[in-house]
Amino acid sequence: MNASTLIEPSFSVHSLNKYASLMTSGNGYLGIRATHEEDYTMQTRGMYLAGLYHRAGKDETTELVNLPDIIGVQIALNGEPFSLTGGKTETWQRELDFATGELRRAVVWQAANGARFRIESRRFASLAQPELVAMQLTLTPLDASASISFVTGIDATQTNSGRQHLDETQVRVFGQHYLQGIYTTQNGEDNVAISAYCHLSAEAQSCFSAKNRHLLQNSSLSVAAGQSVTLTKLCWISHEPAGEMSQQTLSEQSLRALESCVAEGYEPLFQASVAAWHTFWQRSRVQVTSSDPRDQEALDFALYHLHIMTPKNDERTSIAAKGLTGEGYKGHVFWDTEVFLLPFHLFTAPETARQLLRYRWHNLPGAREKARRNGWQGALFPWESARSGDEETPEFAAINIRTGVRQKVASALAEHHLVADIAWAVVAYWQATGDERFMAQEGCELLRETATFWIDRATDVGGRLEIHDVIGPDEYTEHVNNNAFTNYMAHENVAQALHVVRRFAPTETDFFVRAEDFLQRLWLPESNSDGVIAQDDTFFAKPAIDLQKYKRQAGKQTILLDYSRAEVNEMQILKQADVVMLNYMLADRFTRDECLANLQFYEPRTIHDSSLSKAIHGIVAARCGDLAQAYRFWCEGTEIDLGDDPHSCDDGIHAAATGAIWLGAIQGFAGLTLRQGELHIAPRLPAGWQKMAFPLSWQGVALQFTLTPERLTVHSASDAVFYLNGHRLRVTGTQDFLLKDFILSTDGTAPTEGK
Amino acid sequence: MNASTLIEPSFSVHSLNKYASLMTSGNGYLGIRATHEEDYTMQTRGMYLAGLYHRAGKDETTELVNLPDIIGVQIALNGEPFSLTGGKTETWQRELDFATGELRRAVVWQAANGARFRIESRRFASLAQPELVAMQLTLTPLDASASISFVTGIDATQTNSGRQHLDETQVRVFGQHYLQGIYTTQNGEDNVAISAYCHLSAEAQSCFSAKNRHLLQNSSLSVAAGQSVTLTKLCWISHEPAGEMSQQTLSEQSLRALESCVAEGYEPLFQASVAAWHTFWQRSRVQVTSSDPRDQEALDFALYHLHIMTPKNDERTSIAAKGLTGEGYKGHVFWDTEVFLLPFHLFTAPETARQLLRYRWHNLPGAREKARRNGWQGALFPWESARSGDEETPEFAAINIRTGVRQKVASALAEHHLVADIAWAVVAYWQATGDERFMAQEGCELLRETATFWIDRATDVGGRLEIHDVIGPDEYTEHVNNNAFTNYMAHENVAQALHVVRRFAPTETDFFVRAEDFLQRLWLPESNSDGVIAQDDTFFAKPAIDLQKYKRQAGKQTILLDYSRAEVNEMQILKQADVVMLNYMLADRFTRDECLANLQFYEPRTIHDSSLSKAIHGIVAARCGDLAQAYRFWCEGTEIDLGDDPHSCDDGIHAAATGAIWLGAIQGFAGLTLRQGELHIAPRLPAGWQKMAFPLSWQGVALQFTLTPERLTVHSASDAVFYLNGHRLRVTGTQDFLLKDFILSTDGTAPTEGK
Repeated sequence: MNASTLIEPSFSVHSLNKYASLMTSGNGYLGIRATHEEDYTMQTRGMYLAGLYHRAGKDETTELVNLPDIIGVQIALNGEPFSLTGGKTETWQRELDFATGELRRAVVWQAANGARFRIESRRFASLAQPELVAMQLTLTPLDASASISFVTGIDATQTNSGRQHLDETQVRVFGQHYLQGIYTTQNGEDNVAISAYCHLSAEAQSCFSAKNRHLLQNSSLSVAAGQSVTLTKLCWISHEPAGEMSQQTLSEQSLRALESCVAEGYEPLFQASVAAWHTFWQRSRVQVTSSDPRDQEALDFALYHLHIMTPKNDERTSIAAKGLTGEGYKGHVFWDTEVFLLPFHLFTAPETARQLLRYRWHNLPGAREKARRNGWQGALFPWESARSGDEETPEFAAINIRTGVRQKVASALAEHHLVADIAWAVVAYWQATGDERFMAQEGCELLRETATFWIDRATDVGGRLEIHDVIGPDEYTEHVNNNAFTNYMAHENVAQALHVVRRFAPTETDFFVRAEDFLQRLWLPESNSDGVIAQDDTFFAKPAIDLQKYKRQAGKQTILLDYSRAEVNEMQILKQADVVMLNYMLADRFTRDECLANLQFYEPRTIHDSSLSKAIHGIVAARCGDLAQAYRFWCEGTEIDLGDDPHSCDDGIHAAATGAIWLGAIQGFAGLTLRQGELHIAPRLPAGWQKMAFPLSWQGVALQFTLTPERLTVHSASDAVFYLNGHRLRVTGTQDFLLKDFILSTDGTAPTEGK
Repeated sequence: MNASTLIEPSFSVHSLNKYASLMTSGNGYLGIRATHEEDYTMQTRGMYLAGLYHRAGKDETTELVNLPDIIGVQIALNGEPFSLTGGKTETWQRELDFATGELRRAVVWQAANGARFRIESRRFASLAQPELVAMQLTLTPLDASASISFVTGIDATQTNSGRQHLDETQVRVFGQHYLQGIYTTQNGEDNVAISAYCHLSAEAQSCFSAKNRHLLQNSSLSVAAGQSVTLTKLCWISHEPAGEMSQQTLSEQSLRALESCVAEGYEPLFQASVAAWHTFWQRSRVQVTSSDPRDQEALDFALYHLHIMTPKNDERTSIAAKGLTGEGYKGHVFWDTEVFLLPFHLFTAPETARQLLRYRWHNLPGAREKARRNGWQGALFPWESARSGDEETPEFAAINIRTGVRQKVASALAEHHLVADIAWAVVAYWQATGDERFMAQEGCELLRETATFWIDRATDVGGRLEIHDVIGPDEYTEHVNNNAFTNYMAHENVAQALHVVRRFAPTETDFFVRAEDFLQRLWLPESNSDGVIAQDDTFFAKPAIDLQKYKRQAGKQTILLDYSRAEVNEMQILKQADVVMLNYMLADRFTRDECLANLQFYEPRTIHDSSLSKAIHGIVAARCGDLAQAYRFWCEGTEIDLGDDPHSCDDGIHAAATGAIWLGAIQGFAGLTLRQGELHIAPRLPAGWQKMAFPLSWQGVALQFTLTPERLTVHSASDAVFYLNGHRLRVTGTQDFLLKDFILSTDGTAPTEGK
């Protein structure tokens, strides 16, 4: 069964940018927003290369560079520009085919003068050759012969909302069909070559022009009624640091590469990409049989984006918060990568997870430097990072336009849990892959350096170690002491580091002493009589208010219209619930009852203004057995991008939210957890799901799980061990298990679960 | 009789940018393109401040900075964006009122759902307070009540074709109606403050936002059928060098200034500007009674633009080649200023002419430096200049996209006649004003330095001085020796300098010796037996071809599609005719027969690909008595911007061509020349002109001339002397002359004319 398609139900100027984000073409190397060939005033074009960042001025923030556009085609039909805002759209079809990565549009349009045309286009960013983007545009006059003109090429007037990052260094044309522009970041460090081949299927009058940062081919011809003309455009987008390759070489290599694509032809190029997509879906796809077909679509949407957002073969870059679909968060890398995105890769393409962790490892120097600058040892990773690994969080938040005051961004100063999150991902990677070589080197160094940070970060308060002045994931509560999430995660970080360093660097005895002392003395906030852990030292003392009004507008931060940030800070108002998040991340450490108590206490106090919130609540609810709530949260999580809001993702999809769609299915409904380094499955399908099937890579073995409400079928290529509801199973080949034979212990925990 | 209006006959996406240029609002301090409030994909917005230049990168060219936009208003009617590319435009009216500087639009528009609206707007850049731009936009639902929203403010995503010059330094809002952005050129040298006041005539829901370089007010309300709501927007745009005023002070002063405008109110502000326009028209307007009403419209168009393109009260800036109407020629200053634009000012507002000459005087250090760098003495003014007076001509022309080779721009290297053109303008200024104080200082220095350049520039060839390797105004002929235009103009330059320096600096005897020697020995190409002067040493030896095909496409440089520049250089193919230009400029030195011989020889060899060409040919034709040809050339000159081509002036109007419209009327048809420092009038109205009236400032006296085919009426406030067809007249008060009593001598020259 092929992956589904995402359908844009109708043309609307209001949702141009939402669909431009949702339907982005990409391949991990580049992303191109799904803008139409023709321009619209509200349409934001965008093409981004993973890791190509630049800062436009001294007070600006480093951002993902919006490259010159290659998608735009000015189409004139009998001299009048084609635009769906005029004339009449008789039929409309637009879809992104997740199975093949092909974006397609077919329109029958009637011009103001009555003449009708069929306009069809298709486009893909090759998964087989990442530098290649290919498109075809077919025009058919339906009623009478028509003069048709196409103007297309490379448009270097694109900016990031007015900020220009590139100089146009060279523009060239070759023969009748090739155009090439070389663009250099204004700091002179990177060159980008964009080569384009433009070919019409029929004889046309054609000329080139280069002016005002546009390098264009202008072609016009007459087409008889019922006849078609097809523009084929193949583009090769490559970039190199200026110090590593001359512009001349870059230019020549780009042109040669494009020429061989042209020699191959559109269809073979497309089929090569389709084959690569086929491989991806085979090793990754989650298939569900649900009473609601949107569930499968959401999963396919999520996995499509998880694939195209993730850099391949470049360890110096990681995943931007909006992937390569838009300019939100300036394309920076957050903890989203390790906590929300890495698990999918870990269990479907562990080599990618390894690469993402090596990105952090490469950036250890910057993290050490940030720690040192702030007076601590070890590694304090930047809250937001780009390519260099330097702290890229804007020093100041958006100006308060009322007062003119710029507020310091607190996250870079105090949202330190990222350090432990990275360590958590390192451990998960080790457990899921058993990659000893990685752990001996990068893993061990990452754990030791992060642990050293926590050891030095802690404050001695009468013999007890506390962690002061931090921000947890809940960014509505700033500068608190003993944030439960942070303290527990730091404890886990140091504990795992101690374990790993003992094994791989047994001579570092100084570290052992400090780590053991830290583990013994660090304060881990305990449950109160209701089983609830306080989010931080002061949380229970703060007043609560009714949040229903704000919860109905979750994600829009409407609370800040009624209360100042300072006021919100002094109330029990959560953007997302830290303790629920903690329960999720350290499944080993909490019983089902504890999780339930925290969920029930914190959820009413949580607005879910973070796109990271609902999915995690859903998983914890599933673990607690509340499938209805779990499924509701999961569905609401899918709506973050796919919901009805026409502006849900104008500046890019929510990368972490797509990761959470996969997490919700696999960790929520299949009940996957890692406990003591073992793979646990605890299936609990939502009421509407008759079946769920998914592949899983576990310690080098490819497993295929198929779940129904009654049964688990496992296929394993070779010998593998996992736990079903706490019962240890060893499988080879295909095996079938009746779930009723593997029941959870009465308190809802599996036999091996426990605090 | 009021000045006419320029009418945009219908809305067309094809001519958006033409009318945006033609209908620019401005006042010499700033220019704002006449873009619509609503966006169109092909519409280029632009606001420019005279003299505010910046270079966007090391390989870029200094250019006039396109400022953040204040004109744009996103209008939504019942939730749908208003755009004339959709729905149905039932009535359309748009006009620029030259008498008042008001741009008006009134549209009745039917939305796709059938609801009709009246949309009216008006706008002016104040001539009374140059920093002020004001606009009103009135919406009236005609059929049913409607929800209406306006989003407007300051949009700093504008660029010069993708090149960004400004950092957004600060954005603020004050109260319910004020927004302010401070923008700094990326080199940190200049700050621009834009303050905007936005007010709706009815109660509305309103909020501010600042994101992605947009500072916006979003207002929405419901309006009953037949009721109207008016948005009033007043903007104050000021700039200061960063070194001279703090951002804080600039911000405060801008806000205070805007507040007092708001206190005054739209209508009084408008009336103050109208009064200033009234004054301008009174002292400048040329009125014609012609069988073709377009003649008057062209003159009003020209004078309107001559006024708004010219910096007031800033001697450090001059007139950009496209005025402040667009980004063509990067806003640089050429010889156009002295030769095509300065005469209008000289004879209507001589203080402006003085200011324009002081711009060159201030830039003498750069001109001396350029001469010295090239191994010459004296002053070699830059071919293109901006504020600093440095040479701003791009070092390389647009790249040859076929070969990748960038050609050196020859004009900056060899188009030296500019030096003599400036001297020519200095002398004209002196003659027309008798401003001894200016001549004693700036004038004398400019003449001596320019003359010194020519004296040093000349080459001794067997005792004869020649000027080698230059380019004349005809840029289709490069690197020639003894270009007639250049040699004669250099001779005139040195002769005038000798005269002036003798008078004002009588001790500079070294200079006298060198100048006298130069004047004696400089080779002045002589007429051949047909009375034709060779354009340069090699011109007569070159082959001629039939240019009819290219002349029909004059201005489009289509010759370069068939021949390379190098080939054109080796043929008798002229962009504009140097010798005709020379005959025009040095009226004293040539007889009518000589002028006629040159005109008849060169015109067939001239494509008129320069917008400077036809008008001058027309004036020389008029002087030669060929009124039909003169009028045809004049009319064709008016078509350069105003003609049918929908893209005639997308990147700005042709400033010099507007100057030439005035020149053609006054110097062509009224026959004004300066001869031996005297004012000569030799009227010869075109066949269709029954009357022509114009004011003239002559040596401090305000003259008013009224011409009919038979009669000249002169009004002079005080005693004045001028020559009518060579006959000396002294007038005071109003006097009437029958032209038949003042006949030109039989060879067509007036009695005092002669070689």
